[in-house]
Amino acid sequence: MKILLINPNTTASMTQAIAQAARAVAAPGTEIVAAQPSFGPASIECHYDEAIAAAGVAEQVRLGAAAADAVVISCFGDPGLDAAREATAAPVLGIAEAAFHAASFLATRFSVVTTLTRTCVIAERLVQRYGFEAQCAGVHGTDIPVLDLEGAGEALVGQIEEAARAAIARDRSGAIVLGCAGMAPLCAELSGRLGVPVIDGVAAAVKFAEALAALGLRTSRRGDYASPPPKPYAGCVSHLGW
Amino acid sequence: MKILLINPNTTASMTQAIAQAARAVAAPGTEIVAAQPSFGPASIECHYDEAIAAAGVAEQVRLGAAAADAVVISCFGDPGLDAAREATAAPVLGIAEAAFHAASFLATRFSVVTTLTRTCVIAERLVQRYGFEAQCAGVHGTDIPVLDLEGAGEALVGQIEEAARAAIARDRSGAIVLGCAGMAPLCAELSGRLGVPVIDGVAAAVKFAEALAALGLRTSRRGDYASPPPKPYAGCVSHLGW
Amino acid sequence: MKILLINPNTTASMTQAIAQAARAVAAPGTEIVAAQPSFGPASIECHYDEAIAAAGVAEQVRLGAAAADAVVISCFGDPGLDAAREATAAPVLGIAEAAFHAASFLATRFSVVTTLTRTCVIAERLVQRYGFEAQCAGVHGTDIPVLDLEGAGEALVGQIEEAARAAIARDRSGAIVLGCAGMAPLCAELSGRLGVPVIDGVAAAVKFAEALAALGLRTSRRGDYASPPPKPYAGCVSHLGW
Amino acid sequence: MKILLINPNTTASMTQAIAQAARAVAAPGTEIVAAQPSFGPASIECHYDEAIAAAGVAEQVRLGAAAADAVVISCFGDPGLDAAREATAAPVLGIAEAAFHAASFLATRFSVVTTLTRTCVIAERLVQRYGFEAQCAGVHGTDIPVLDLEGAGEALVGQIEEAARAAIARDRSGAIVLGCAGMAPLCAELSGRLGVPVIDGVAAAVKFAEALAALGLRTSRRGDYASPPPKPYAGCVSHLGW
Amino acid sequence: MKILLINPNTTASMTQAIAQAARAVAAPGTEIVAAQPSFGPASIECHYDEAIAAAGVAEQVRLGAAAADAVVISCFGDPGLDAAREATAAPVLGIAEAAFHAASFLATRFSVVTTLTRTCVIAERLVQRYGFEAQCAGVHGTDIPVLDLEGAGEALVGQIEEAARAAIARDRSGAIVLGCAGMAPLCAELSGRLGVPVIDGVAAAVKFAEALAALGLRTSRRGDYASPPPKPYAGCVSHLGW
Amino acid sequence: MKILLINPNTTASMTQAIAQAARAVAAPGTEIVAAQPSFGPASIECHYDEAIAAAGVAEQVRLGAAAADAVVISCFGDPGLDAAREATAAPVLGIAEAAFHAASFLATRFSVVTTLTRTCVIAERLVQRYGFEAQCAGVHGTDIPVLDLEGAGEALVGQIEEAARAAIARDRSGAIVLGCAGMAPLCAELSGRLGVPVIDGVAAAVKFAEALAALGLRTSRRGDYASPPPKPYAGCVSHLGW
Repeated sequence: MKILLINPNTTASMTQAIAQAARAVAAPGTEIVAAQPSFGPASIECHYDEAIAAAGVAEQVRLGAAAADAVVISCFGDPGLDAAREATAAPVLGIAEAAFHAASFLATRFSVVTTLTRTCVIAERLVQRYGFEAQCAGVHGTDIPVLDLEGAGEALVGQIEEAARAAIARDRSGAIVLGCAGMAPLCAELSGRLGVPVIDGVAAAVKFAEALAALGLRTSRRGDYASPPPKPYAGCVSHLGW
Repeated sequence: MKILLINPNTTASMTQAIAQAARAVAAPGTEIVAAQPSFGPASIECHYDEAIAAAGVAEQVRLGAAAADAVVISCFGDPGLDAAREATAAPVLGIAEAAFHAASFLATRFSVVTTLTRTCVIAERLVQRYGFEAQCAGVHGTDIPVLDLEGAGEALVGQIEEAARAAIARDRSGAIVLGCAGMAPLCAELSGRLGVPVIDGVAAAVKFAEALAALGLRTSRRGDYASPPPKPYAGCVSHLGW
Repeated sequence: MKILLINPNTTASMTQAIAQAARAVAAPGTEIVAAQPSFGPASIECHYDEAIAAAGVAEQVRLGAAAADAVVISCFGDPGLDAAREATAAPVLGIAEAAFHAASFLATRFSVVTTLTRTCVIAERLVQRYGFEAQCAGVHGTDIPVLDLEGAGEALVGQIEEAARAAIARDRSGAIVLGCAGMAPLCAELSGRLGVPVIDGVAAAVKFAEALAALGLRTSRRGDYASPPPKPYAGCVSHLGW
Repeated sequence: MKILLINPNTTASMTQAIAQAARAVAAPGTEIVAAQPSFGPASIECHYDEAIAAAGVAEQVRLGAAAADAVVISCFGDPGLDAAREATAAPVLGIAEAAFHAASFLATRFSVVTTLTRTCVIAERLVQRYGFEAQCAGVHGTDIPVLDLEGAGEALVGQIEEAARAAIARDRSGAIVLGCAGMAPLCAELSGRLGVPVIDGVAAAVKFAEALAALGLRTSRRGDYASPPPKPYAGCVSHLGW
Repeated sequence: MKILLINPNTTASMTQAIAQAARAVAAPGTEIVAAQPSFGPASIECHYDEAIAAAGVAEQVRLGAAAADAVVISCFGDPGLDAAREATAAPVLGIAEAAFHAASFLATRFSVVTTLTRTCVIAERLVQRYGFEAQCAGVHGTDIPVLDLEGAGEALVGQIEEAARAAIARDRSGAIVLGCAGMAPLCAELSGRLGVPVIDGVAAAVKFAEALAALGLRTSRRGDYASPPPKPYAGCVSHLGW
Repeated sequence: MKILLINPNTTASMTQAIAQAARAVAAPGTEIVAAQPSFGPASIECHYDEAIAAAGVAEQVRLGAAAADAVVISCFGDPGLDAAREATAAPVLGIAEAAFHAASFLATRFSVVTTLTRTCVIAERLVQRYGFEAQCAGVHGTDIPVLDLEGAGEALVGQIEEAARAAIARDRSGAIVLGCAGMAPLCAELSGRLGVPVIDGVAAAVKFAEALAALGLRTSRRGDYASPPPKPYAGCVSHLGW
């Protein structure tokens, strides 16, 4: 089975770190093909970054999904998720969505710990759209820049741990969702420290993608996830039209 | 990996049919251990049946979950789900919940086709509790008794197909969720006929259970899913206390 | 008029205490018939206890409701409420539901003070199911074990009073709902101390049951509250089938 | 016990008819004191009528509630309900609210049959405010003018019956709420014809008011239902200030 | 263009102050015609005041709207808004509604700072009715009486500023809505101090009213905003019937 | 005052048609500067088109908003709205949002008539995000391709009229929202035919933008609408970074 793992930002080292986290949990026989857009922001820390990055995700699905059995979008805002589901019949999972679903199987209430406080609203709107308002008890920013997570040392891990402990107490939560793909490498360490389930969306999305693909389930071609209607695309994305 | 697959009713032939459906999708290395309560209704077709069956699920988790890596509850009302999550740290999945989650990955709107119309409210309340109100576009009864599904012939399959087609059109849906564990053996046939994803909760729950267990994720022991507080149990369930 | 008052746990002294609270508010001419299941937990302090207790409620309604004009279920999780409504056409009231309804007549916002914090989620889900999300401003645990409420002295009363005062201030509430049948005997004392309406669900349920029965209103036999479909019941509950 | 029963419109014959319906269900020892505003519309069939009528309800509570143990507002829009709860500590019930609560005790879904279609939105907003969105499956107009209900003959009763039957089928409902105080005299007849619980809000409000008063429960004086702050009132309502 | 600006209370100095605030933002060519009811409370600080004031708004629209191109209701509870929309086809705006809409264009989350804490529930219900629950992050009382706002000095302005700062921090808000027409004259000063958008509903309503009127948009005459059905009105409002 | 009017697709004739509709309603002194992205789809008819177009909107705001007093995004999916609000402090309005707000001022319920049925879900999600679920009674597709609206003749106008009439009846609506910028030129004709308010989002957004700008209100710079954090952008959008 081949999973196309898209890092929506354009930082190659982060793409590799996410791919490594994905490979660590993939089943034998699952190949992780990592990709990043040819254009866009070095990290995604606001709506503006995200709008450009979503187009980058659309590009990568358009160009690369034909050979994939499933697709995972590895940014906690799930940028371009609906576009990707139109652009391929392979099942597509966002890591925020996968993490929320996994957490809801393990605790009646969970909290999200993420990077910049200004991006909390992005996660909160996904919580609303996906319907986890009763289960998600809080979204908490740490104001750690995304790229600082690469090679994070004890100081950053401790900061995330502290935010998670505060969230568990304040939100009466039973589980923690890590609100950034860049936190994937820290999941095991934080699980050990916190004593509650800690969910990394990259890992969850890879396993759920394997599950759906194994069942032969594919994205519905009926309704709004049908293939895009053919039309010309102008300018630097002219090769992305249908 | 060992999955305890609980059929909440007491009809042994149905337990075996569900187990067979589960084994058909289980990964190599996954053992399906099927069980049913020592007491309770032959099928679950109303709140009253369900209340007794939920106690039966609690019994089976209490007695059998110690040796399991994950638990699946195979009735579309997810009876005893919260009780089971307290009674074991192994991840526990209900088939309604698993099916809703799977469907939400594949279509923006899905419809449920179930057995007795009087049980629609049970599924509708799960939709509300789990937060799928924006995605679940309708729950539709066929008034087929649960046990009639065993060895269902063309007449019954055609009846379900017709109900599904009507639901897709009326609800503007892109996927169908089968609203009864007894429909599991019909999933492949109906998928072929309908041309949209058809989700059987038994299969979905087994694969999601494998996914969670593979990630080492277990039910939170913090908060309301902590182990039950010890106390005496009276009467015919005296062996079930903690 | 005869009201069947079911204590869902199996502690006889608590059954008697609840019956006494009910008789204290019953109208002249109302007979309170107290009952408890033949099996189940000594108290209900988690989902697991509740799942077994709900079956016990179903048993008592099955065996005893024929002679009753109304039924009251006296545990704040309203276990077995839907099952009971199928098993008899007499009106059935849960004490959580009755208390929420009464509180909403008296204040725009109310707070619940209950026993174990781990059970808050049970009340919160009832709030969601019944539709009191805009009126219920908070559910607060005191971590007092249920059976400690029997013969509660000043220390416990003071602890509940303090929790109620904190809830009123924090939640901007105008009324307090007592979140356990075992608190019924404390209602008058707490009302006097707090200076806001304090609602005991046992009393509220008894009076609303009298009201419905006096109007000749009975549980609908149409739809999902119709009598259970006949079928065999296995094992220790074989006498409970329809 | 004395219940102040306010008909918010100014049609004396309707006030008497409602009073008669209330007396028919009142307990021995309950005195029904009927009143209507000194000003306002002959019937309430739109927002404009209702805005004036709500002031009329405030007048009657201001002038008459001191001697009452409970107050009932007998128009299905519950006009002036919050104002009345500030103006007296006696419990106050609206007939829409009482009917919704009663119906939710008897069926998982109910439908409302009311007078003018243009007033459906008034009931729908009460459903939203009170939190009955999951239980109220539909509000249906018959376009019968309110005052035509006085001395309604077979034609009108048949029209309401037909609308109720259609609602039950379309909404999958188990009970009918009558959406106008003027329908109170038809409740018994319609119950007999329809075979499901039919709830008249006047009757329900009277019994719930008796229940609350018997328990000694009064409107909270803390928060937004505290007595109005003293201030001058100008013009034709100068005697209504605090 | 002529805008009828109704102050729902009967304090003439406040009517003039609101008119002045409206004229300060009105376009050249817009005439502001200020009015207040002939009866009712000197200020609106509770549900009771509001119920009477809503009738006063209905009076002023009935008597004065014929010559107006748009109507603005200048009290933060939007009293009589629906009645006014029936009583004239000119577009009608409430200041709470206008302020909420404006704020939602400028920030993902906003907070309301109002007068008496007891009136917070009025604003909260408008938030619910209008659908701003995800955007309005909090409603905060200052317990400043409405009429104290006239000629407010530094002490009061400082108190409102402090409440606004606390709200911004606690609610994670990006904008402040002033929750009383009497605060209109303070808007510019508070904007300067707070460094976030501060929205005065009077100004917002005037500009939105101009916008709608310029587009030729008028209140729908179809459905529940159709003109009131003709009928007699009794007593001191007999001239207000249709 | 200068309004930057962005057509998110790349069809120049449609940009001109929208600009013409905007200029027809703009106040004297308002200059409409029309723009379209340098890249992207010829029309927006699915999530995939929209994801690319949102990046195009971000481009145009990044390059052109410095000189604008307000920005209007002229596609009914409001693509790139949040990104645009970060990229400029000038107020930004989407046409779907503006139309919903305008409609809610004029009728208690409105219906949307749009182009392809597959895009209904896009409007429905905006309805959910913006909070118009109680007011928007239905979103209806006509399956008219967006670019067919250019120079629409009687056949297309009649088709839209018919869909609107059906929506009004089925949804019990009092107003119609046109669900595509391409329908702007048809608004007056349809208003005349339908007899209810017909709202074109382009016109509504222009007037609301004028209103906000006239009040000196600007997008909050506090919280998640703060300017994007500076960082490198790669590839064909490298000039769009901050």
